[in-house]
Amino acid sequence: MKKLVNDVNLVVDEELDGLTLLYPNILQRFPNSNVILRKESPVKGKVSLVSGGGSGHEPLHGGFVGKGMLDASIAGEVFTAPPPDQIYSAIRNVHGGRGVLLIINNYSGDLMNFKLAEEMASDDGIEIGRVVVNDDVAVESPENRRGVAGTIFALKIAGAAAERGDNLLDTQRIGERVVANTRSMGVALTSCTLPRVGKPMFALQEDEQELGIGVHGEPGIQRTRMMAANEVATVLYDRVSKDLVLRREEEVVLMVNGMGATPMMELLIFSRKVVKLLHENGTKIFRSFAGSFVTSLDMAGVSLTLLRVDDEMKELLLEPERTPSFPKLL
Amino acid sequence: MKKLVNDVNLVVDEELDGLTLLYPNILQRFPNSNVILRKESPVKGKVSLVSGGGSGHEPLHGGFVGKGMLDASIAGEVFTAPPPDQIYSAIRNVHGGRGVLLIINNYSGDLMNFKLAEEMASDDGIEIGRVVVNDDVAVESPENRRGVAGTIFALKIAGAAAERGDNLLDTQRIGERVVANTRSMGVALTSCTLPRVGKPMFALQEDEQELGIGVHGEPGIQRTRMMAANEVATVLYDRVSKDLVLRREEEVVLMVNGMGATPMMELLIFSRKVVKLLHENGTKIFRSFAGSFVTSLDMAGVSLTLLRVDDEMKELLLEPERTPSFPKLL
Repeated sequence: MKKLVNDVNLVVDEELDGLTLLYPNILQRFPNSNVILRKESPVKGKVSLVSGGGSGHEPLHGGFVGKGMLDASIAGEVFTAPPPDQIYSAIRNVHGGRGVLLIINNYSGDLMNFKLAEEMASDDGIEIGRVVVNDDVAVESPENRRGVAGTIFALKIAGAAAERGDNLLDTQRIGERVVANTRSMGVALTSCTLPRVGKPMFALQEDEQELGIGVHGEPGIQRTRMMAANEVATVLYDRVSKDLVLRREEEVVLMVNGMGATPMMELLIFSRKVVKLLHENGTKIFRSFAGSFVTSLDMAGVSLTLLRVDDEMKELLLEPERTPSFPKLL
Repeated sequence: MKKLVNDVNLVVDEELDGLTLLYPNILQRFPNSNVILRKESPVKGKVSLVSGGGSGHEPLHGGFVGKGMLDASIAGEVFTAPPPDQIYSAIRNVHGGRGVLLIINNYSGDLMNFKLAEEMASDDGIEIGRVVVNDDVAVESPENRRGVAGTIFALKIAGAAAERGDNLLDTQRIGERVVANTRSMGVALTSCTLPRVGKPMFALQEDEQELGIGVHGEPGIQRTRMMAANEVATVLYDRVSKDLVLRREEEVVLMVNGMGATPMMELLIFSRKVVKLLHENGTKIFRSFAGSFVTSLDMAGVSLTLLRVDDEMKELLLEPERTPSFPKLL
């Protein structure tokens, strides 16, 4: 295992330190915790947004804390849900009097721990809303679908709604509308390696790839021979657009997301084909971008996310934000 | 070799297509060439900025075309200088009547081809300035120093100067001042693999790393055992800050740059130590950020860049830009 780390038991602690040291003007770390807070927390008179999950998906979630997006993130250990007491602490420290919206990716551990924290916060009289993100179409049944890269659209759009002054229910509703209109699917060329384990989670031969991979190395739909980028793009696009029931003339935002070790050259080659497929389908592209936003440690691979947008979402997407990692929408 | 590509002979053509398809509002590709132009070219009454170099360093250079930075980039084949006729074509197509500044990384092939293009453009009566970037302190003699990640600071600051209306000489001068105050050094954990070759350029054992690596896999200063992130950070910081003759109370911008396959988790852990070293040294950090900006295909590794800033540079750094890949300075 070749990783630029110090102690494999301290990767989360040290990366959170690194993040807050790089961006001291906008972030702070809550003492003795893995909670990252927006610098000026709590922001009074605004619905607060809190999210989090296991580490290993950087820049998620800490990179999306800041004005216009998250008020707090909570990082669990690598691929492990964050503990309820830290989620509760985050909620208490960002609550500005208008309630707190939790944005949770659809994994049982995350759901359970956020639920426990929600109960503690409710006992304190804090009003809580929740949005569960489940954009991964590699899983058939929607209730079991994992939350993957599409989560950053929920953070952005609900975050912009909160920032403009929407109440808790309205902020939650637009978050839910984003989730209802977001679909993703990914492919792995290589496995990721957990720092504490030091060897790949699964074996992929030199001529193999895994379609429908999860961001924790969960098995995909199909292990296939290595395909050309255009073929991978077509397979992912077909499944994502079909599940989204994407019709001609509808308008989308396209995200091409690297899984951690994918060079920009490859993301661009993949993007080329996806944009061409959208053009062929008669779909309008409101904005599109490529980068690594929701990763799986050092996995090589890519995911494709489409968000179907309406006028309100478009307006909120273009609201300014001040976070380390949300892309410019140009 | 596991790469998400189609035809290894078409990677540059296809990635440039991908880039312009993703960002149609700000970029255009000049027909039958590897020239990327700012959408609204030529911008009249402004000094124009042109840069370029071999491909394989994405998002450099195309990701830095747009308002406030480059007017045009020219991509050569992978690790190969762009041809003079395309550089000349870029110059002609962006010239807005106030001259063109070429920003060139210090490699003999690039210098030669930009020189030839400059001569052709001068024959047309276009006034040309040039800035040569040579920030890599892994090379002892300054005249042989390679241009690496620090080049994006020259693009940004000279680009902002041009945008505010500086003349050619002033734009060149501030670009030169940026170069004089920028130093970088990198380390490789793995080799990169050229698409057409299909196997690593050099061999690094599981317990080895290469300090002072070049962005084309040029040999570094020293091949050592794998070091902890803190130790790597200290070695690179010492060399970079010493060469910059960085004194207490001076102010810098810090860039931690991934080499193509380095996950954000590792960049953050590395960043943590660098920021601590700057604090210990009494250096003020104006802005700092981590990401992958000047890469070496699929190399795992990191580079550290420090830019010593003065008041004018700080002001220009904070000017808005509209490019796909320049980071937010928060």
